[in-house]
Amino acid sequence: MHMPYDSRETRSTAEREADIFARLASVIEAAMRAPTYAERLRGIDPRTVASREALARLPVLRKSELPALQRADPPFAGFVPAPPSAFGRLFTSPGPIFEPEGRGPDPWGAARALHAMGFATGDVVLNTFSYHLVPGGFMIDSGARALGCVVIPAGPGQTEQQLEVIAAFRPVAYCGTPDFLKIILDAAAKAGRDASCIKKALVSGAAFPKSLQEDIAARGIDAYQAYATADIGVIAHETGARAGMVVNEDLIVEIVRPGTGDPVPEGDVGEVVVTNLDPHHPQIRLALGDLTAALPGPSPCGRTNLRIKGWMGRADQTTKVKGMFVRPEQVAEIGRRHPELKRLRLIVTREAEADAMTLAAETAAPTDALKAAVGATLQDLTKLKGAVDFVVPGSLPNDGKVISDERKID
Amino acid sequence: MHMPYDSRETRSTAEREADIFARLASVIEAAMRAPTYAERLRGIDPRTVASREALARLPVLRKSELPALQRADPPFAGFVPAPPSAFGRLFTSPGPIFEPEGRGPDPWGAARALHAMGFATGDVVLNTFSYHLVPGGFMIDSGARALGCVVIPAGPGQTEQQLEVIAAFRPVAYCGTPDFLKIILDAAAKAGRDASCIKKALVSGAAFPKSLQEDIAARGIDAYQAYATADIGVIAHETGARAGMVVNEDLIVEIVRPGTGDPVPEGDVGEVVVTNLDPHHPQIRLALGDLTAALPGPSPCGRTNLRIKGWMGRADQTTKVKGMFVRPEQVAEIGRRHPELKRLRLIVTREAEADAMTLAAETAAPTDALKAAVGATLQDLTKLKGAVDFVVPGSLPNDGKVISDERKID
Repeated sequence: MHMPYDSRETRSTAEREADIFARLASVIEAAMRAPTYAERLRGIDPRTVASREALARLPVLRKSELPALQRADPPFAGFVPAPPSAFGRLFTSPGPIFEPEGRGPDPWGAARALHAMGFATGDVVLNTFSYHLVPGGFMIDSGARALGCVVIPAGPGQTEQQLEVIAAFRPVAYCGTPDFLKIILDAAAKAGRDASCIKKALVSGAAFPKSLQEDIAARGIDAYQAYATADIGVIAHETGARAGMVVNEDLIVEIVRPGTGDPVPEGDVGEVVVTNLDPHHPQIRLALGDLTAALPGPSPCGRTNLRIKGWMGRADQTTKVKGMFVRPEQVAEIGRRHPELKRLRLIVTREAEADAMTLAAETAAPTDALKAAVGATLQDLTKLKGAVDFVVPGSLPNDGKVISDERKID
Repeated sequence: MHMPYDSRETRSTAEREADIFARLASVIEAAMRAPTYAERLRGIDPRTVASREALARLPVLRKSELPALQRADPPFAGFVPAPPSAFGRLFTSPGPIFEPEGRGPDPWGAARALHAMGFATGDVVLNTFSYHLVPGGFMIDSGARALGCVVIPAGPGQTEQQLEVIAAFRPVAYCGTPDFLKIILDAAAKAGRDASCIKKALVSGAAFPKSLQEDIAARGIDAYQAYATADIGVIAHETGARAGMVVNEDLIVEIVRPGTGDPVPEGDVGEVVVTNLDPHHPQIRLALGDLTAALPGPSPCGRTNLRIKGWMGRADQTTKVKGMFVRPEQVAEIGRRHPELKRLRLIVTREAEADAMTLAAETAAPTDALKAAVGATLQDLTKLKGAVDFVVPGSLPNDGKVISDERKID
């Protein structure tokens, strides 16, 4: 059971990489037909972006920039080559960020994830993601329908009516947040109504802590997590193996040092950066602000694509110190100016009623001269004085934190 | 502008009737593959249902019966030949009544209505009907997309976000209730935000009184009404001519005396009964509980199908008199037993702290013997005593009322 959706999921990494980078040039070309991508990628010859190393040299587009950019140049800030009228549906998501829906029967790439979770033709699916304004509901709706499932477009809330449609249609599957699944199951139990028809679930959009996983499993439901965003769609998903999340096909996922576009060493926690392979709606190195880490090797389920741990927190660690913004980009710039340094972590604390900061820096060759130089660079870039504390390489935690705000909130 | 959607809209009545009744037999055949239709239509030879007269002899299925029937035999009470898994989406609507979504790109027949209102390829449409549980949102979504429009699936509420998507995407068209259109326009005006991009609208689902029509028109918006239900989809719609609502193609609409299956004389107010021509989800003589009346002749816009006045109230006039239910069916039965009577109207009043009822009956030949006989039939059928008051034919109001409850609410 839970067989691969198609042979692309189990091809060798070399084959997948060759396929991806054979297609990427035309996607970059398409992106450059949009004015803002054209400006940001000026001088790039798309044909030369034929490897992950070459891709890593392209600028990232931070999702956090998009609200202001789109406000100044609505609706898409010049990042979409086609006009809004060329799409089927138009959405918004918190920010606000505005996004179009891609083409085809499964524009958000959800069918593959649902298939990996055991969803099949004829399954009746209770879809409680919202269809209103945001793309979540349609993501699942189109993916499930592409698989031949039958969808109850339930949306969130209205628990009483959810119980009514469960009684009438006996859905075998649930899609929505894990919390709302629990709300429905608890409401059914309390009202003495039978919701035992639900046997499997795709959950997303919120944390799914161990205790809740156990609670749901104890009720006979196989629930799997997906990692999806409103701009890209389904980025990665669990499979029957329950061994991390497998990255979706037709995407290039990179994990970078927050504040940079530089891939982290394999296994390090970093920010998710996604490039899609959709020439109609190309997205090149979109930095999503989410933290994750790669897992080594292929999934035991046989899928060979990159595996990630799933959502590990927010990457955007911009904070204010003594009233001044301090950004991960500035910490990354310190590393670039001093190649002797490995991992860096700016620790912000509160001492004697004032903000204080210390740059913890991994280096194999600590010297007083280097310490003074790094301190000067820190002050130069942040306009703030801070201490520098050398530590041995590998001793800083692998949690993706570049700025660790350790001030107690009063 | 607002040209017909296709040549079927302007064909002669004879041509349309021939087409409809050529197709009806296979639809009835399909219906009879569903157990409850099979039972209700037992003994009918579908090939003999080749005219409106023959159709009028089939039993009606009252929508008001469906909640109890479906509760006893979920989900569709045996009226749908295919299982739920054969459909794409499943819905509920107040009752609750459960219904499947038909097949194809425009399963609710909305494209034709939108086209008649001037919606065209590339139009950005703000769709504020709900997509959650009920089919309203998808009705418009699929119809608009079939026309090549781009849909913002906004759903109702969230006025602030509605203004954001209006600013970002500049929709040229609105779909939703007339009230919510006013709410959005007022909110935009109050916030000093520009919603003048909206130039046309399909409104439905609520009354659209003259004063509101004028308010919307004064803001430069061409708003047209559609009459749609969750079971059938779009039944009739206004056109550029603004001369009543033209019935949708692929439906047979009858207007019957409430409580019966008998067509009223042309122009009389009666209950809407719809037969669709979808063999996948056949619906035979579904009595919707809504009142309307036919308008004479074709629409000035050139569409030749039956024109109706639109929604004129609820047909279900069942009431309680002295604690006993009195139903339109009982009044209709009086008419059947006394063919000398024309239009009937049971008037319920309050006299000396007690319920009282008077049957006003049109007849050209009033006699004391007939009055006594009608009074006896009234008591026989309702188990209640009532007065009988003869009036001349044509003197009772043409408002579809069979039971007029004129008791003041304390």
